[in-house]
Amino acid sequence: MKPRPIITFTSDFGLQDHYVSAVKGSILWINPEVKVIDTSHELTPHDILSGAFCLSSCYSYFPAGTIHLVVVDPGVGSSRRGLVVSTDRFFFVAPDNGVLSSIFAREELREVVAISEERYFRHPVSATFHGRDIFGPVAAWLAKGVELADFGPSVDDYQRLSLFETEVDDWSITGTVIHIDRFGNVITSLDEDTVQGAGPVTDSSYIQIEGHKIDLHARFYAEGPENRLFFLLGSSGYYEVAGHSQSAAAHLGIQTGAKVTLVF
Amino acid sequence: MKPRPIITFTSDFGLQDHYVSAVKGSILWINPEVKVIDTSHELTPHDILSGAFCLSSCYSYFPAGTIHLVVVDPGVGSSRRGLVVSTDRFFFVAPDNGVLSSIFAREELREVVAISEERYFRHPVSATFHGRDIFGPVAAWLAKGVELADFGPSVDDYQRLSLFETEVDDWSITGTVIHIDRFGNVITSLDEDTVQGAGPVTDSSYIQIEGHKIDLHARFYAEGPENRLFFLLGSSGYYEVAGHSQSAAAHLGIQTGAKVTLVF
Amino acid sequence: MKPRPIITFTSDFGLQDHYVSAVKGSILWINPEVKVIDTSHELTPHDILSGAFCLSSCYSYFPAGTIHLVVVDPGVGSSRRGLVVSTDRFFFVAPDNGVLSSIFAREELREVVAISEERYFRHPVSATFHGRDIFGPVAAWLAKGVELADFGPSVDDYQRLSLFETEVDDWSITGTVIHIDRFGNVITSLDEDTVQGAGPVTDSSYIQIEGHKIDLHARFYAEGPENRLFFLLGSSGYYEVAGHSQSAAAHLGIQTGAKVTLVF
Repeated sequence: MKPRPIITFTSDFGLQDHYVSAVKGSILWINPEVKVIDTSHELTPHDILSGAFCLSSCYSYFPAGTIHLVVVDPGVGSSRRGLVVSTDRFFFVAPDNGVLSSIFAREELREVVAISEERYFRHPVSATFHGRDIFGPVAAWLAKGVELADFGPSVDDYQRLSLFETEVDDWSITGTVIHIDRFGNVITSLDEDTVQGAGPVTDSSYIQIEGHKIDLHARFYAEGPENRLFFLLGSSGYYEVAGHSQSAAAHLGIQTGAKVTLVF
Repeated sequence: MKPRPIITFTSDFGLQDHYVSAVKGSILWINPEVKVIDTSHELTPHDILSGAFCLSSCYSYFPAGTIHLVVVDPGVGSSRRGLVVSTDRFFFVAPDNGVLSSIFAREELREVVAISEERYFRHPVSATFHGRDIFGPVAAWLAKGVELADFGPSVDDYQRLSLFETEVDDWSITGTVIHIDRFGNVITSLDEDTVQGAGPVTDSSYIQIEGHKIDLHARFYAEGPENRLFFLLGSSGYYEVAGHSQSAAAHLGIQTGAKVTLVF
Repeated sequence: MKPRPIITFTSDFGLQDHYVSAVKGSILWINPEVKVIDTSHELTPHDILSGAFCLSSCYSYFPAGTIHLVVVDPGVGSSRRGLVVSTDRFFFVAPDNGVLSSIFAREELREVVAISEERYFRHPVSATFHGRDIFGPVAAWLAKGVELADFGPSVDDYQRLSLFETEVDDWSITGTVIHIDRFGNVITSLDEDTVQGAGPVTDSSYIQIEGHKIDLHARFYAEGPENRLFFLLGSSGYYEVAGHSQSAAAHLGIQTGAKVTLVF
């Protein structure tokens, strides 16, 4: 598979500052044909889990050959490496800090290299902005046809965080809240496959979350009643707690990291 | 007129989450040539009026053949239909919930079809994310040249909300506040044409809004004085109340939905 | 040098309203080939300094021929002029209110013209939205190959603000806080060149800012300690005060405009 001149770009840079556009400038300087598609730049600053969730929720919908650039990089300037990864369908460019963990878990990897070839960097390389000077340029050269092996040596000791963990018991499955979206939907680490493997969700199944019991199962948001929270299988493949036209997170007083149990 | 590979995208998905990019991925998967232009994704969640106002304020500036995709969809997953609409100059793809009402009111319609042909959907279709699985893909196929009739049957019983209402009296015209923009300008439903038809705006004309009287008429923002609110004809063709370098909305304590009267 | 169909777009329009997309529509209507790249639209409303800083931090990374469109325009509708500027590498389109001052200070200018030729405007021209009706269209025509001289007469009396000022003393250099970014980094007007010319930064150098003394110098963010602020040379070429995983601005209670002194 060949890379395609489409680069998705995920970061915690925010949209108020110039950072996102400096990276795009740097990409277009090398390869003006590239189409850069923003995923989110409003991730919680330095939150690697948040970056991993955003990437894992959108990368697979893009056409084969798309290059996914992820810059959530609290260790910028230190000795942490940069990675270029290829799978059967996609390419990924990111710091080696675990932000690609969901890709390592879900995709068949073809090649993983550590970025070392400085001729693909923008110079001088700022010690504080590798998105502009290293990751963006590497993604742009990749889109121009540079081979993975040209960026640096193969590695297999890259960071793999155990994200989105679940623990299966006899009658239940326990996970954590991994994301609150802008509608206030409480997205959990309980994914469709694990839940289906552990036991069927029936009419008497319910979710427990910080002292609250949500025992209404809906198929879609509009099916839920006006004044009661319910749970459903969300569009990213994870179970979530939602309210019809109200924020479930605000109502429950829940934040990312809270424990959640689905009792079958 | 032929569709052009330009799709504008309006939604209430926000820019923090992955939703907008998943829709774009889904579009590019079908048609990598498309240029997707964001209008706003920061509309008030589930607010159909807000979506209708945003669309009506920008759609007409795009080149003929542009496809306008609008996903403000509180009824996602329920039986509400999706629509594809063509006019003399544009195409529109949206849920049938009234969000296209201003188009129905202002444009000569050529064809309106209800989306039913599942071969143009992304599968499996999530019950909670038709933007990614139905509306985005339909817009992408449209940009590829699929005819309206291929998406489903013609309909004429689509939802038409009476948006942006005005009531004309002998010496005045009354409407509502339809939008507060980021500068705090208070945009009303009093549009240029209706106001011109009802009576001339003169030096003694004034606006009444929740106990406040704004009797200064300006042509542009910088013409208004520093310490006093004024009203003017805004760039979308609606009268608005504004302050020079201050938020009129904050000063007046006004929100969307408030009554407003222009006395000639 | 020829213009290239890449237009960067900087404004204070925000991303909630339709303004940004109306400008893009207006550009694409004239020239559908253009790629519009957003820098920031979340600048402080009417803040010319903020626009100048954003532009100066990203324009130089784009490929030669890029057109930079900047619409921070508190004087819209008044008699302030619009400008088109060319340098050896870039083009700029903006109101003549000082927002291009850093370009005037740093780049070799080729040509500066005042926009007057109305045939390049969108008509009717709104008195409140020259971004959509004048600046966007002019940038689009420029990308189509219209010569600078065609837009209006050469001028040399354009607004030049003294932005980002510094004052060099025997043992110190004093400037101001010009930007707080989303990570809370406090970016000062003390730029690399001026600081290097004034005296070397050594291990005993420190920064004074509103009663606080920051005496730790780091090379990159991750090098700073967990519980102490430090200063470093930021990626835009200005010294900044930062915290490792904490907002320096919040910790110091600092806002844009505060005085800052670097003692060598």
